[in-house]
Amino acid sequence: MSLRAWTHCKAATMVGGGAAYGWIADAALVVDDETLAWVGPRSELPAQYRAIEAHDCGGALVTPGLVDCHTHLVYGGDRAGEFEQRLNGASYEEIARAGGGIASTVRATRAASEQELFAQSRKRLRALLDEGVTTVEIKSGYGLALEHERKCLRVARTLGESERVTVRTTFLGAHALPPEFAGNSDGYLAEVLFMLPMLKGEGLVDAVDAFCERIAFTPAQTELVFRAALALHLPVKLHAEQLSDSGGAQLAARYGALSCDHLEWLSEEGARAMAQAGSVAVLLPGAFYFLRETKLPPVALLREQGVPIAISTDCNPGSSPCSSLLLMLNMACTLFRLTPEEALAGVTREAARALGLTDRGTLAAGQRADFVLWDVAHPAHLSYAFGSNPRLQTIQGGQPS
Amino acid sequence: MSLRAWTHCKAATMVGGGAAYGWIADAALVVDDETLAWVGPRSELPAQYRAIEAHDCGGALVTPGLVDCHTHLVYGGDRAGEFEQRLNGASYEEIARAGGGIASTVRATRAASEQELFAQSRKRLRALLDEGVTTVEIKSGYGLALEHERKCLRVARTLGESERVTVRTTFLGAHALPPEFAGNSDGYLAEVLFMLPMLKGEGLVDAVDAFCERIAFTPAQTELVFRAALALHLPVKLHAEQLSDSGGAQLAARYGALSCDHLEWLSEEGARAMAQAGSVAVLLPGAFYFLRETKLPPVALLREQGVPIAISTDCNPGSSPCSSLLLMLNMACTLFRLTPEEALAGVTREAARALGLTDRGTLAAGQRADFVLWDVAHPAHLSYAFGSNPRLQTIQGGQPS
Ligand SMILES: [Zn+2]
Ligand SMILES: [Zn+2]
Repeated sequence: MSLRAWTHCKAATMVGGGAAYGWIADAALVVDDETLAWVGPRSELPAQYRAIEAHDCGGALVTPGLVDCHTHLVYGGDRAGEFEQRLNGASYEEIARAGGGIASTVRATRAASEQELFAQSRKRLRALLDEGVTTVEIKSGYGLALEHERKCLRVARTLGESERVTVRTTFLGAHALPPEFAGNSDGYLAEVLFMLPMLKGEGLVDAVDAFCERIAFTPAQTELVFRAALALHLPVKLHAEQLSDSGGAQLAARYGALSCDHLEWLSEEGARAMAQAGSVAVLLPGAFYFLRETKLPPVALLREQGVPIAISTDCNPGSSPCSSLLLMLNMACTLFRLTPEEALAGVTREAARALGLTDRGTLAAGQRADFVLWDVAHPAHLSYAFGSNPRLQTIQGGQPS
Repeated sequence: MSLRAWTHCKAATMVGGGAAYGWIADAALVVDDETLAWVGPRSELPAQYRAIEAHDCGGALVTPGLVDCHTHLVYGGDRAGEFEQRLNGASYEEIARAGGGIASTVRATRAASEQELFAQSRKRLRALLDEGVTTVEIKSGYGLALEHERKCLRVARTLGESERVTVRTTFLGAHALPPEFAGNSDGYLAEVLFMLPMLKGEGLVDAVDAFCERIAFTPAQTELVFRAALALHLPVKLHAEQLSDSGGAQLAARYGALSCDHLEWLSEEGARAMAQAGSVAVLLPGAFYFLRETKLPPVALLREQGVPIAISTDCNPGSSPCSSLLLMLNMACTLFRLTPEEALAGVTREAARALGLTDRGTLAAGQRADFVLWDVAHPAHLSYAFGSNPRLQTIQGGQPS
């Protein structure tokens, strides 16, 4: 048993129900191996912990390790060329006709070897870790065929083993229609339902997601995916109501979804269903910003209905080529008018909940010892400043970086 | 004489008039002490340079060192608390009544010692340098009294001596009205005209700026500042047409301004005057984003009139608490619809021009050897991705970091 303490810090424990931010002005944390053994005001540190080796944080702020609960960070290629063409006047159709858009990412992802994908994806992951992320979700969905979906999920797993981060994998076979199934979405859906148990059997799948939208899969098709997931005892989540209200949130709630994500067009009925099911609303301000959307997610409605709100990067090459979760805090406040406390809860406590992880996201005895020291005076600073990184140190599973 | 070469790189030289980005697919750069002695395709490297020690860039992209031509990065305190209050529903008036807004930054700046200001400001500067900035402009304007304006400008100078960056200082005494001159802007203006020659005499001033706006100083007051600057042979620039069209651009152009900055409300007449005077339009997308402005700067008009466009962070605690120039590239493209090439020119060639510096901003023989190696395949990637930093290395004045 290895006990260590961190003292002389201000703690935003993010434990709900008490002071804002679960604030402790002068805190101490005791770590036992990978777990927090005790968290509280330094003056109340129990006698048995007073003699152990203590790291003096010099007044730093400590928060839970950050959780990025919605990323597509494993992909081949990038879409910088397309970005430039569009700004030089090319239309979306011209780009699509030239083989651009998601089709180009599918092509590049299929063409990449597992090693190449690993090397490219690791850069994006390391950018997240550099800002204090200790848990990340990674979706498949650019392979869209068994061997390529498998390759992407294997890369995600390998990243989790080689980097100091917990990786949760999500099978998003129902992301888009691959070219070989053009005009035959039911045919591709059968393929998705075939892939899922195989990949689950290989230990590659922690959850199942789908893209329910006019331009993607119908609610009926989404439901088939959810049924298959539940038969395999896998939790579900959904890309829902991003471009229109298709009732995806209600559908996902019926299947006890961990989260519904995007939600710009969420209806009151959808919000009510999510609240009852305990589904988290994952808001993605990077995609909203990058796509120049104007329809804001209904934050007031979410608050009113008591739907928990998480924030994520949505790191992906098409709609959010972003690998800064701190920037998402600022964008959640600036664009969506979340408070800094809601934003920080959205990348800690609520993001963990969106992944079904109950052992992290707050600083409390019994929780996993994932936390970050920051060179800021107050947690609001993490949302206020943008384009800077005041991280001093990450402790992941009790181990300092 | 110490000659060194960098080879096996793709160069975005940003030399105008030829290929996009001044592109060289397989480039070599020869550095003689602090200066570029030769830049061109590797296959054309002159015989006299073939034997010198060469650094293999491994296919990296090389660009000129970045220039951040409009910052207020020397200040005390921060405004995170105010940011949080506003998101919790406080109005601007309530915050102002409680001593918030720029008055709180002036108070904190005055209260800080030179050492404290240096330590706080250095963090922000280092965040910029970490992204490849090699030249930065720093304005005063939070001291608003001789000893405090002096303190801020001294900190800026000291930063330029202690960090690997060229600092250009700008006296912005006419930024806001200090509390002791409330209701007496002419009285404070006399103070500004008194401070300027003193601070110039101490070697602290490279240029002079003012804030010409309904909520700040009138065109007539601005003109008094400009006359004083010209009498001292100091170039001028102006915060102009941010919140309304006050004709500041025409006024500044009459005084041969290096730049007019912000410009959301710039008129056609103003753009024409700037084009004739050779004044650069400095666009500040961070402030536009953070203040949730909706009036876009007239980019089409600037292009039409041939006004050069620069991009900057406007790093300041009130309207752009931002220390990422790379993020400004993305925001310039996403929000203002600049092309990636315009955006990159805006933080290199045109930003140098906005500071009156002719020895930098492009990669060409005779220019200062300030350049950056990036781990990206194409320069458009610097604008496309956001919240990541692909910098590999900075060479500043010929010296690798
Ligand atoms: Zn997504
Ligand atoms: Zn400014």
